[in-house]
Amino acid sequence: MDKLDVVAIVGSLRRDSFTRKVVSALVAAPSGLAIDIVGIGDLPLYNSDREENVPPAWQAFRDRVRRADAVLFATPEYNRSVPGALKNAIDVGSRPYGKSVWSGKPAAVLSASPGALGGFGANHHLRQSLVFLDMPVLQQPEAYLGQADKMIDASGGFANDSSRDFLTKFLGAFEAWIRKQRAAPPAA
Amino acid sequence: MDKLDVVAIVGSLRRDSFTRKVVSALVAAPSGLAIDIVGIGDLPLYNSDREENVPPAWQAFRDRVRRADAVLFATPEYNRSVPGALKNAIDVGSRPYGKSVWSGKPAAVLSASPGALGGFGANHHLRQSLVFLDMPVLQQPEAYLGQADKMIDASGGFANDSSRDFLTKFLGAFEAWIRKQRAAPPAA
Amino acid sequence: MDKLDVVAIVGSLRRDSFTRKVVSALVAAPSGLAIDIVGIGDLPLYNSDREENVPPAWQAFRDRVRRADAVLFATPEYNRSVPGALKNAIDVGSRPYGKSVWSGKPAAVLSASPGALGGFGANHHLRQSLVFLDMPVLQQPEAYLGQADKMIDASGGFANDSSRDFLTKFLGAFEAWIRKQRAAPPAA
Amino acid sequence: MDKLDVVAIVGSLRRDSFTRKVVSALVAAPSGLAIDIVGIGDLPLYNSDREENVPPAWQAFRDRVRRADAVLFATPEYNRSVPGALKNAIDVGSRPYGKSVWSGKPAAVLSASPGALGGFGANHHLRQSLVFLDMPVLQQPEAYLGQADKMIDASGGFANDSSRDFLTKFLGAFEAWIRKQRAAPPAA
Repeated sequence: MDKLDVVAIVGSLRRDSFTRKVVSALVAAPSGLAIDIVGIGDLPLYNSDREENVPPAWQAFRDRVRRADAVLFATPEYNRSVPGALKNAIDVGSRPYGKSVWSGKPAAVLSASPGALGGFGANHHLRQSLVFLDMPVLQQPEAYLGQADKMIDASGGFANDSSRDFLTKFLGAFEAWIRKQRAAPPAA
Repeated sequence: MDKLDVVAIVGSLRRDSFTRKVVSALVAAPSGLAIDIVGIGDLPLYNSDREENVPPAWQAFRDRVRRADAVLFATPEYNRSVPGALKNAIDVGSRPYGKSVWSGKPAAVLSASPGALGGFGANHHLRQSLVFLDMPVLQQPEAYLGQADKMIDASGGFANDSSRDFLTKFLGAFEAWIRKQRAAPPAA
Repeated sequence: MDKLDVVAIVGSLRRDSFTRKVVSALVAAPSGLAIDIVGIGDLPLYNSDREENVPPAWQAFRDRVRRADAVLFATPEYNRSVPGALKNAIDVGSRPYGKSVWSGKPAAVLSASPGALGGFGANHHLRQSLVFLDMPVLQQPEAYLGQADKMIDASGGFANDSSRDFLTKFLGAFEAWIRKQRAAPPAA
Repeated sequence: MDKLDVVAIVGSLRRDSFTRKVVSALVAAPSGLAIDIVGIGDLPLYNSDREENVPPAWQAFRDRVRRADAVLFATPEYNRSVPGALKNAIDVGSRPYGKSVWSGKPAAVLSASPGALGGFGANHHLRQSLVFLDMPVLQQPEAYLGQADKMIDASGGFANDSSRDFLTKFLGAFEAWIRKQRAAPPAA
């Protein structure tokens, strides 16, 4: 089967983001998904007045997401919710009204934190937005990655078997979810 | 096509519940769904100690849900969340561990209030539970029914065209969602 | 100073509840709070039709909470939210309209789980209800107790210093919060 | 009494934002609050790498909020949550660790939408962040402003009595809340 084109949106902008390292390890892992991390750090803050003269970064982001088969959201937690940068990317992709690039695309959510809680607050705030955006979301396994700063080693690989096993299982479930949602509906 | 067997869980226990009236109108509406309202008012509060000697009402509830093809949750909002009675039914069906009756069943959520807000808080609290319960949930259309006490007339029918149109559209989307989720996954 | 009368609502009904053990250790800890665990397991499911003939268990519960200076909610997480039994107790105390026993009482929330996540989902769902119930809630420290089944030893005491230290700090912050909220407002 | 210095953070950046119009009407309304709308549209997206060389807009924002007595958050709802721009402002003010400008400041939340739901999703997502930020938040009255695009007339005043009455009551409750939280705690 052809690989599925998955865009990954990473909520952290900093160089050494552990969330991005986790996603980079997923990019390198064998799977039926071709995962492409799409930058969000240069997207101007959403303001509908600017739709009259769309910023090129908005246009490029929208075009890239629109082509994708599915979306992987990977987010740290800032103040018990998603980072502003990630929410801004969602807002940019969702407008103008009636032209959302997210609509109907299968999605999965992975949240991460250096502490124990694994970004639970960010994870579920994101899911609330995905209802409105009409994205069918993978429910299980939920991915709350605690101690995420210790999951990836210096070479970019999984630092331990439990991390590898869980994330491989997560990827496999996501691929199956995408393929199922893309399957032709039964004839009416 | 055969009708799909859908159990409806109604969050309000009172006789004249407007939420139940809405669901009763859906039961009577033409669709590919055979909707069966399953009572939750006689379920003893969940306590895992009682798994040693399961209350008959728990057993009957679990058996009924397990047979169903899908689940429609219809809920008023009590104190910005789901009523305790509805959450208790979810808890009863979810245990013992590894034997949840909810797992994998397609679901839809309909929330209702006499005010303007349409039970938004209850709607999304429910959705958070459905992630854990591994129920693929219909995302759109969201159903926040404001002024729900005025949607159904004295004869049990829809009181106006906009109510009929929206709820008919909702039912149709739910049926399509269930059929899609039940379709055989594509061969690997 | 006189001790403050605090009712504790424990979300789990089972005999060996680790959440209740934690609260029992708080009851025994030295503080300015006299904490009284109030049972919720015998409260019939809320149904406004029964206000015509109020169940004695509802009345006793309402009377007890109404007398209290403050409320401590201690909850496990069932299906990423509060247990139905706890939500039912909240619903019972909140009605009939205009006669809520919760209104204005300072509150704190403590969530607990045997896993890592510490009941985050239950904690914040509860907080959403407390907005509507007009209860000023302690914000910090947040109390997400992971591995809560290992915090209390066989004699009922704190199993380790970090548990004792955190929970003592939490209790102290709650007492200061209650006293602050009860202080006379400045003259207008 | 001296007026209290309240910074207002408005979640929408567009010129004709109805949320900003509502806040502007509150600025003009008689009260014990001196409300100052602080811009957030020029804040670069939060990235902790930039703490090494803090953007001037971040510094000015942090300095302004730090001086304030209290914070009014006024937000539309984008995709069932707060706009990215508003969350970004919260993130900017919350860092670096241990130097949050929000800590301890009394807050109120006002959400607005042109539809019926009044920004419920944005309102409560914001409240979840405020727990972590240790901001004591006004609970009642909750402010979900539906049809907010019709609350303010062309001259900037309240378009009708119910809007004026509700928002005046809200402001008064917020002022009382701030004064109460600032009152000296009782001697220990």
